[in-house]
Amino acid sequence: MKQKISKILIANRGEIALRIIRACKELEIKTVVVFSEVDVEGVWVAKADECYPIMGNPIEAYLNYERIISMAKKANCDAIHPGYGFLSESAEFARACEENGLIFIGPKPEHIELFGDKMASKVAMKKIGVPVLEGTDTPVVDVKEGEKIAKEIGFPVIIKAAFGGGGRGMRIVKQAKEFSKMFESATNEAVKYFGKGDVFIEKYVENPRHIEVQIVADKYGNIVHLGERDCSIQRRHQKVIEIAPSPLLNDAVRKELYRVSIKAMFRLGYESVGTVEFLVDEQDNIYFIEMNTRVQVEHPVTETITGVDIIQRMIEIAGGDKLKFLQEEIKFRGYSIEFRINSEDPQNNFMPTAGTVTKYLTPGGPGVRLDTSLYAGYELPTCYDSMLGKLIVWSLDWEGAVKKAKRALDEFYIEGFKTNIVLHREIVRDDEFRAGKFNTGYLDSKMEKFNLGAVSLLADEEKKVSFLSSIIKKIKENNLITRS
Amino acid sequence: MKQKISKILIANRGEIALRIIRACKELEIKTVVVFSEVDVEGVWVAKADECYPIMGNPIEAYLNYERIISMAKKANCDAIHPGYGFLSESAEFARACEENGLIFIGPKPEHIELFGDKMASKVAMKKIGVPVLEGTDTPVVDVKEGEKIAKEIGFPVIIKAAFGGGGRGMRIVKQAKEFSKMFESATNEAVKYFGKGDVFIEKYVENPRHIEVQIVADKYGNIVHLGERDCSIQRRHQKVIEIAPSPLLNDAVRKELYRVSIKAMFRLGYESVGTVEFLVDEQDNIYFIEMNTRVQVEHPVTETITGVDIIQRMIEIAGGDKLKFLQEEIKFRGYSIEFRINSEDPQNNFMPTAGTVTKYLTPGGPGVRLDTSLYAGYELPTCYDSMLGKLIVWSLDWEGAVKKAKRALDEFYIEGFKTNIVLHREIVRDDEFRAGKFNTGYLDSKMEKFNLGAVSLLADEEKKVSFLSSIIKKIKENNLITRS
Repeated sequence: MKQKISKILIANRGEIALRIIRACKELEIKTVVVFSEVDVEGVWVAKADECYPIMGNPIEAYLNYERIISMAKKANCDAIHPGYGFLSESAEFARACEENGLIFIGPKPEHIELFGDKMASKVAMKKIGVPVLEGTDTPVVDVKEGEKIAKEIGFPVIIKAAFGGGGRGMRIVKQAKEFSKMFESATNEAVKYFGKGDVFIEKYVENPRHIEVQIVADKYGNIVHLGERDCSIQRRHQKVIEIAPSPLLNDAVRKELYRVSIKAMFRLGYESVGTVEFLVDEQDNIYFIEMNTRVQVEHPVTETITGVDIIQRMIEIAGGDKLKFLQEEIKFRGYSIEFRINSEDPQNNFMPTAGTVTKYLTPGGPGVRLDTSLYAGYELPTCYDSMLGKLIVWSLDWEGAVKKAKRALDEFYIEGFKTNIVLHREIVRDDEFRAGKFNTGYLDSKMEKFNLGAVSLLADEEKKVSFLSSIIKKIKENNLITRS
Repeated sequence: MKQKISKILIANRGEIALRIIRACKELEIKTVVVFSEVDVEGVWVAKADECYPIMGNPIEAYLNYERIISMAKKANCDAIHPGYGFLSESAEFARACEENGLIFIGPKPEHIELFGDKMASKVAMKKIGVPVLEGTDTPVVDVKEGEKIAKEIGFPVIIKAAFGGGGRGMRIVKQAKEFSKMFESATNEAVKYFGKGDVFIEKYVENPRHIEVQIVADKYGNIVHLGERDCSIQRRHQKVIEIAPSPLLNDAVRKELYRVSIKAMFRLGYESVGTVEFLVDEQDNIYFIEMNTRVQVEHPVTETITGVDIIQRMIEIAGGDKLKFLQEEIKFRGYSIEFRINSEDPQNNFMPTAGTVTKYLTPGGPGVRLDTSLYAGYELPTCYDSMLGKLIVWSLDWEGAVKKAKRALDEFYIEGFKTNIVLHREIVRDDEFRAGKFNTGYLDSKMEKFNLGAVSLLADEEKKVSFLSSIIKKIKENNLITRS
């Protein structure tokens, strides 16, 4: 059932659209992008072989799947890549692609559906023998019933939107008396963001590590893992920094995570790439939390330590190719760290920022990868997610990777609006981070100690250079001057 | 005799100054740069911890070693890194550093001297048992004597400046009747560029591959190689593209190159990094041609396949550190290709170009490394070498590396002056290059077939985007438009 893919429509924008175009160019596959009217200056629009505007609401442009499918057909595409976010976890969209003779580059609709329902997926994984957190198997709608269940499980518990993600509709309840208030706000948020107020309740693990396993599976039952990522550095349940491999993970735990992930994916007949997410508590117990049925923001750290191009393999699998490598052929090398670069102001409660890039100096040299669609002169639209791109570093050892991160972050200079680079600079200078000691509570516990008001190093250097320029004009004879 | 290095003066400019600063920042070593008055806007000047201008002639600024040493002492530096070019192969400078209590980051002066003299080094290597090309052991000054020797060796022969490099003062003589004219022009060029007209004559190997071995040696007799680089893609004896490992090199030949290189460096008591250069003819005979006693422009391809930071190890060795790895710990992975990006016009006999960078889009994503001090807004000085930086790509296999190179070169867009990127784009599209089949005659044989007048892909895209922008303003309803 090998299907040749020769032209792909990319139903996404920004760095991930550019990332998919890069993968396609190397595979010699033609690309088509749809773009909203505010994205016309996006560098990925220029780089695609064809581009079609979708006028009107600029977010709706990337969600309007009937229109996207009709464009894919008119442009003679074989397949659609959804990226992450937008339509990437819509089983309806995946089915609509199929019905229209287009390959949806991702897993089967039933798996998107299964893992889109947090409770159903927990039940399914438990049945396969994957450890899960104690909690409800069906949605809770009544606050009294919820409180009773929470008392049975024992506090602390966590309330989670059944159809949510990204930390929305999620509340931690430490004591019985807080329950009703938290339940109400969680269900309200779930309705607001996901259209459904269904929540579930489960045991809350304090300060666990968030460890996830990258899976690649073809249509013929061949499944390999590409190792794990440590995504414990989070702010309000949103990942900020991702690392591969996890610096202090016990090797027996690592192997167990791989084993149960592969087993579950094999039993379910999963295909495409995907990520099985776990919590690991202080006693090294592991708990499945959710599965992401798409390519993830943090896929580059895995690519960097394995040399495997995850997007290319994802496209080949969708086209019917067999996996080209066996598990034992995957070699892991060194450490990689990814920093999400966001247009937000860490000194102002991480409020989104916007503007035009007026000066742009990027890190480079050995062990530095940059995935972004930014460039000097680019005007940032205000209506999308604040993530501008990702800085990824690599070194043979953990200590070297942290030093490289520090060096690369210090080099990165974006003039025009504030970014979270100052936060990353503080993190890589922190002794606990450098020692590899962190869990999901790390960032909250550090935020107050960090100096987020530090002047941009490069802004400072810029001033010195302009000072130097003026001095030099005045120097007539060879004099020695210093910058301090 | 371990000496701690905590502050380094960098006696260089441009991408290599930036490369050394990056290495120092990761080692937590302070950096000092000297800079000419035209280099004040150089990004490496801003990034160094201290910077000192040297007024006057902008080339002389980086050659005035008395002044550089005096600045290093005043700034309390422990060591000087010379980079490549400028003072990097001056034994006098290395000795002057020593006499002034400064560590010269490079080999011992006697080795710089030995390998600076092409004839003496050939004699020394021959004595150790390294195969060399048949030729003169002492300088030839008389044209009649030269012609007699050439006839003994048998044509074709090559005339080479004894104290030269980079293709200057070098002439190939195919027949006896051309000898006297070629001899005269070679000696004239040698006088012009190196101050000495001494030349030697040796057997000329037609269309060999240029293969070089990267050596790292500490002060305690520990020597490892980091594999070979294939630098056969040359234009007028200047390297244009460098590759590690060599795509079609016979494994027995590869091992023999490593063996004789290590043996020779061990016998000579060489320390620091260095490169042993060989020609490999069509029958797989190997011939030592020269040794470079400094870090080379093309060191990144070796870093990329081994994960070893060559500049960092060079600094540690100069400070008295022992090598941190054994030969068997060096693991080679995948293929890396470096493209030298030059400000020159391939359509106008590669004449140097200049100007201000008005728009700048750089390649990124997986497997792409960029070493350059360029940025949008930078005004290129006209008085230095035309090399602006290097684009380095990597992939697990050769075919993947070539595809990645094509993709990355297509993404690279520098507006403001012409560059040789168009030449690289043609090379990576050539079937023989893609098959790994090339020798030092490759580029000359292809130049006429290449279409160097191709419109910059991105300039073309830019026009389309600006067309799109104007169209979008006019669209009232959701229409489908194409870019073709």
